[in-house]
Amino acid sequence: MADSSTNMRIRLPVLCIVLEVILILLFGVLVEYDENTDGKHWNAKGNHSHHHQDYENEFYYRYPSFQDVHVMIFVGFGFLMTFLQRYGFSSVGFNFLIAAFSLQWATLMQGFFHGMHHGKIHVGVNSMINADFCTGSVLISFGAVLGKTSPVQMLVMAIFEVTLFAVNEFILLSILGAKDAGGSMTIHTFGAYFGLVVTRVLYRPNLNKSKHRNSSVYHSDLFAMIGTIYLWMFWPSFNSAITEYGDPQHRTAMNTYYSLAACTLATFAFSSLVNHEGKLDMVHIQNAALAGGVAVGTAGEMMLTPFGSMIVGFLAGTISVLGYKYLSPVLEEKLKIQDTCGVHNLHGMPGVLGALVGAITAAMASKEVYGEGMIKVFGDSDSDDWSVGQQGGRQAISLGITLGVALFGGLVTGFILKLPIYGAPPDTHCFEDALYWEIPGEEEGHNELTEVGTVNEVEKLNS
Amino acid sequence: MADSSTNMRIRLPVLCIVLEVILILLFGVLVEYDENTDGKHWNAKGNHSHHHQDYENEFYYRYPSFQDVHVMIFVGFGFLMTFLQRYGFSSVGFNFLIAAFSLQWATLMQGFFHGMHHGKIHVGVNSMINADFCTGSVLISFGAVLGKTSPVQMLVMAIFEVTLFAVNEFILLSILGAKDAGGSMTIHTFGAYFGLVVTRVLYRPNLNKSKHRNSSVYHSDLFAMIGTIYLWMFWPSFNSAITEYGDPQHRTAMNTYYSLAACTLATFAFSSLVNHEGKLDMVHIQNAALAGGVAVGTAGEMMLTPFGSMIVGFLAGTISVLGYKYLSPVLEEKLKIQDTCGVHNLHGMPGVLGALVGAITAAMASKEVYGEGMIKVFGDSDSDDWSVGQQGGRQAISLGITLGVALFGGLVTGFILKLPIYGAPPDTHCFEDALYWEIPGEEEGHNELTEVGTVNEVEKLNS
Amino acid sequence: MADSSTNMRIRLPVLCIVLEVILILLFGVLVEYDENTDGKHWNAKGNHSHHHQDYENEFYYRYPSFQDVHVMIFVGFGFLMTFLQRYGFSSVGFNFLIAAFSLQWATLMQGFFHGMHHGKIHVGVNSMINADFCTGSVLISFGAVLGKTSPVQMLVMAIFEVTLFAVNEFILLSILGAKDAGGSMTIHTFGAYFGLVVTRVLYRPNLNKSKHRNSSVYHSDLFAMIGTIYLWMFWPSFNSAITEYGDPQHRTAMNTYYSLAACTLATFAFSSLVNHEGKLDMVHIQNAALAGGVAVGTAGEMMLTPFGSMIVGFLAGTISVLGYKYLSPVLEEKLKIQDTCGVHNLHGMPGVLGALVGAITAAMASKEVYGEGMIKVFGDSDSDDWSVGQQGGRQAISLGITLGVALFGGLVTGFILKLPIYGAPPDTHCFEDALYWEIPGEEEGHNELTEVGTVNEVEKLNS
Repeated sequence: MADSSTNMRIRLPVLCIVLEVILILLFGVLVEYDENTDGKHWNAKGNHSHHHQDYENEFYYRYPSFQDVHVMIFVGFGFLMTFLQRYGFSSVGFNFLIAAFSLQWATLMQGFFHGMHHGKIHVGVNSMINADFCTGSVLISFGAVLGKTSPVQMLVMAIFEVTLFAVNEFILLSILGAKDAGGSMTIHTFGAYFGLVVTRVLYRPNLNKSKHRNSSVYHSDLFAMIGTIYLWMFWPSFNSAITEYGDPQHRTAMNTYYSLAACTLATFAFSSLVNHEGKLDMVHIQNAALAGGVAVGTAGEMMLTPFGSMIVGFLAGTISVLGYKYLSPVLEEKLKIQDTCGVHNLHGMPGVLGALVGAITAAMASKEVYGEGMIKVFGDSDSDDWSVGQQGGRQAISLGITLGVALFGGLVTGFILKLPIYGAPPDTHCFEDALYWEIPGEEEGHNELTEVGTVNEVEKLNS
Repeated sequence: MADSSTNMRIRLPVLCIVLEVILILLFGVLVEYDENTDGKHWNAKGNHSHHHQDYENEFYYRYPSFQDVHVMIFVGFGFLMTFLQRYGFSSVGFNFLIAAFSLQWATLMQGFFHGMHHGKIHVGVNSMINADFCTGSVLISFGAVLGKTSPVQMLVMAIFEVTLFAVNEFILLSILGAKDAGGSMTIHTFGAYFGLVVTRVLYRPNLNKSKHRNSSVYHSDLFAMIGTIYLWMFWPSFNSAITEYGDPQHRTAMNTYYSLAACTLATFAFSSLVNHEGKLDMVHIQNAALAGGVAVGTAGEMMLTPFGSMIVGFLAGTISVLGYKYLSPVLEEKLKIQDTCGVHNLHGMPGVLGALVGAITAAMASKEVYGEGMIKVFGDSDSDDWSVGQQGGRQAISLGITLGVALFGGLVTGFILKLPIYGAPPDTHCFEDALYWEIPGEEEGHNELTEVGTVNEVEKLNS
Repeated sequence: MADSSTNMRIRLPVLCIVLEVILILLFGVLVEYDENTDGKHWNAKGNHSHHHQDYENEFYYRYPSFQDVHVMIFVGFGFLMTFLQRYGFSSVGFNFLIAAFSLQWATLMQGFFHGMHHGKIHVGVNSMINADFCTGSVLISFGAVLGKTSPVQMLVMAIFEVTLFAVNEFILLSILGAKDAGGSMTIHTFGAYFGLVVTRVLYRPNLNKSKHRNSSVYHSDLFAMIGTIYLWMFWPSFNSAITEYGDPQHRTAMNTYYSLAACTLATFAFSSLVNHEGKLDMVHIQNAALAGGVAVGTAGEMMLTPFGSMIVGFLAGTISVLGYKYLSPVLEEKLKIQDTCGVHNLHGMPGVLGALVGAITAAMASKEVYGEGMIKVFGDSDSDDWSVGQQGGRQAISLGITLGVALFGGLVTGFILKLPIYGAPPDTHCFEDALYWEIPGEEEGHNELTEVGTVNEVEKLNS
């Protein structure tokens, strides 16, 4: 898979420019302001508008949540991946590039599948949140292959993954009527298993040649904690960003808050327990403490209660730490899945847990508990042929479909990414910023982060 | 106080799991959704609900403030304490653990004291903010003992401190009818003096054996500035998060903004003035610039005016810098108070100042200035036996009670924490991450942050 | 320009204290709560108030945007400038000081020019946002002279720049009726050209004596990315913070979001293309990716459409990268403009582009597109002598005036700053924290960031 050259000079600019020009043209033809952003609609105060006051503009319900989600995508994911000692520029930088592309492409794909209006895609804060969500899924997959791919490869992956994300989301939410406000299935399960299959297809038997770079240093772990803490704090906003207004949004945020708190105690407990000296492992704290947010992504908007949320969070933290400690090495040795960030432990298993919790919670819903709020959570609940059992079934089927689309999509995308045309790093230079970035020299002639040897070799690879 | 072993393997997991299981059980029995988060209540649109529209859900008034407070607790406090050269993992990590526990425990304790509803504690964004506030108090105390305690010790401290916080808060706000929206008394004065007494009881005569680690390095100071700046920026949200809706919330945020701005100029001025070369000291900038937020925590919601806020902020910055320079060394030498982060200068003295300013501002309130808004700020102001002088008196008494509860509580808690069962670090290994964390090796064999000697000794301590 | 001593001990404290005392006195005489923050006004519910419900308080429309802007000013600008290897304390610290002063001074200057109420300046969240905006302009100029000035010099610059900013803003918005919600002209063009002229006047022919410090190291570039990402994420809030409520605010945020996304792809494309090995340059990613926010600062609130926004963003990113690569060296060599952060490429050219796009978009406005919303965007649009062509003309004239005020103001201010009384660093010690800050020693005796030689020299300079 290692190309003869990793020089990006033609490949990356051409791909970026071609993609952006296509995006601009498609936006020009297909996209228009929605009711909440269009100056024309908003002031009619008449028959065509059901809003009368500016404070009812969707902006005021959703924009603070959007910004929190935005921080998670760009700071959260970006800095979480800076834990590698020589890959901070690529982690934050490629995260930035991939996300900036994906959110535009997702706007089109989701707009297309979620329903066009007279041939037009309508955009507003709602579509912005959804586009960021879809982007999150791509970034999860990026975590699985981190350090072993070129930016061109990642943009190509994003093209396919965004498309399949939109297809899967359409099947789940629009056809099956499943509920998944925080994306346990659509975002986390999908992104994780998609990425895991891609990294499986891109398996590098000689990756141990770069093993010395596939670890953290003291300050890179602190940078990664910036990502962790932002993801942790804003996950309540993530799960509640597109729920119905009012109590569902409020409840979802609170359920997530409690799930994460319980998850954090489980993470510290098991991280210490699995170490023979009782020492805490930064990898666990950085990742497993977030699993509680993933695991209430489906049921968070339901009447899960703080009690239920804490149980789910505690379980999620536990399986996530155990996954990092015991399952990841097995997956790498036996199944040849080289999962750089351990997305299987943070997004994969907790995502499946979240889907199951969602199915069970839906199946246990009742009019006594939800009252009139039933219809706010389960939109179809007033139709005759709807039952809680049926909703639970839809949720379970949705998990299966998500896994199927992710595995199939990852497989196809993986083989496309295996073509030796993207300038992927050679096995000897994975997890290395110097391949794709100008690295600043260290002061006083002592070259801390890039040995001279490495740089010289890198120069050769680029020529 | 140094135990024979600092190995956390049994102690930390058992404590975390036992605490979380107890929390989950208590939440299961005692906690239910409040009116704003319960699907059942919200859609009644009838006699039992005084809300008619989703936009009147408390969520939209308070959630943005909550998220700002949340950032202060986890990023602000967490990173502020990363200034120590070898204690970044513990600062951010233990801050994370203690906070995740405290917010759950605080929900129960505050819910219990603030009034149960038919035997149930009601939760929503309001209780989330209050729980974060209480957590802030624990983290202030954590700052006083930073680097000298084990995570088990800190969790035990949190159990007691949260409980006493809720008792003190109940006495002040519910019994005495004091006002303290931003917590000059309940959070800052309480947390600081509690922590100072704890660190006094845990006095280590031989702490100078770890002196070389009790200081910053260049990049650790930059990480700490992340904490400082986030605390500074979001303090207006902190002080205004639980005031009444509308103008009080708006006014509190603005008063805090001006107080902090004036405080910052005072901090730079006095930091330069007290240095014989006129050089600025990062310790002052990181901490004293925040004192302006502490000092308007009580009066911020009143008609303090920007003018008054700026005077208070300027004073707070001044006493805080002077405290760091002249008072802290005296406290350490004479009173044996080893205050790692100088919480006395950032939270203690400015908290007392804030309480006094609150008492004076309340005593000077008048119908001419507040108009109908009087009742929004002082809830009792329409009852016959209420007067501004009386309110000022209540505020002053509240300061005294807070100091009493903090000193007594800190004393008892300190002696409990002195038991040699928590795996506290020995005097030779304070301010050292390697005791409780797996530390990544430095690349290229040059071990920047953990001398081999230290690590070997640490291994012995853990066995 | 190098003074005999860089000791700040008298100069900085005296200036800070005198300025703050003057500010406090002026606030005492001139400033009062506005309708939304005054307890008296808000509860009248009668003839004098047009608000009836707390949720209509301006706070709920604008405070989340304000906090995002606040983060951009203190974290965004502050950390963006930490890219220099030995200037992180000064970048974040002086940014903090200058901003805390400027926002207070701006409140007075803008309040004075924007209209007094019976001799009083009214303050609320709106004035807080405007003060932060004005502060942003000063920080842009700070970027041009970064590393070559003393904090006293920067405070003096802020006094003049804030004043002229308010004059220019008054001419543009109040006299000419130009629209510039996101400040392409008032903030970015003004701040950039003001700073460029100042740095030209302060030209240092021997600056290459500090050349080895005028560059980044690995971790300083990561700290700078924190600034970049926060600016990028919150720019939609920046541009929309003071637009009219409802659809204009919503639309502005969305247009900015798309412009930035397109800009990011252009930045990566051209950064790779202009490097002979195809490697990305952190300077471009940190700066040029933000140009898309600058360039829709004027037209963002208009019906620019996502399509138009993306074209503008793409152009902005392109000219910004090309500016860093090809124009900056020419400006330095031929015009003797030493622009440390390259503000000409990030704020100057994209600001001018934004002004032109604003003029064209205004000139192309029509009733068919804007409907009733026309009056929300162009306040005068219902008066008889208003036409879109005329509005376009006003916008174009505004650009000219802004450039004139900035160039003239920068010239005068530059000569004032050239007086040898501010303790400016000598040519040999530019870009050096140790001049104005106590620098922590490195652990284990190996002095990474301050060679002993340098420190000794610095001691001499301070005495």
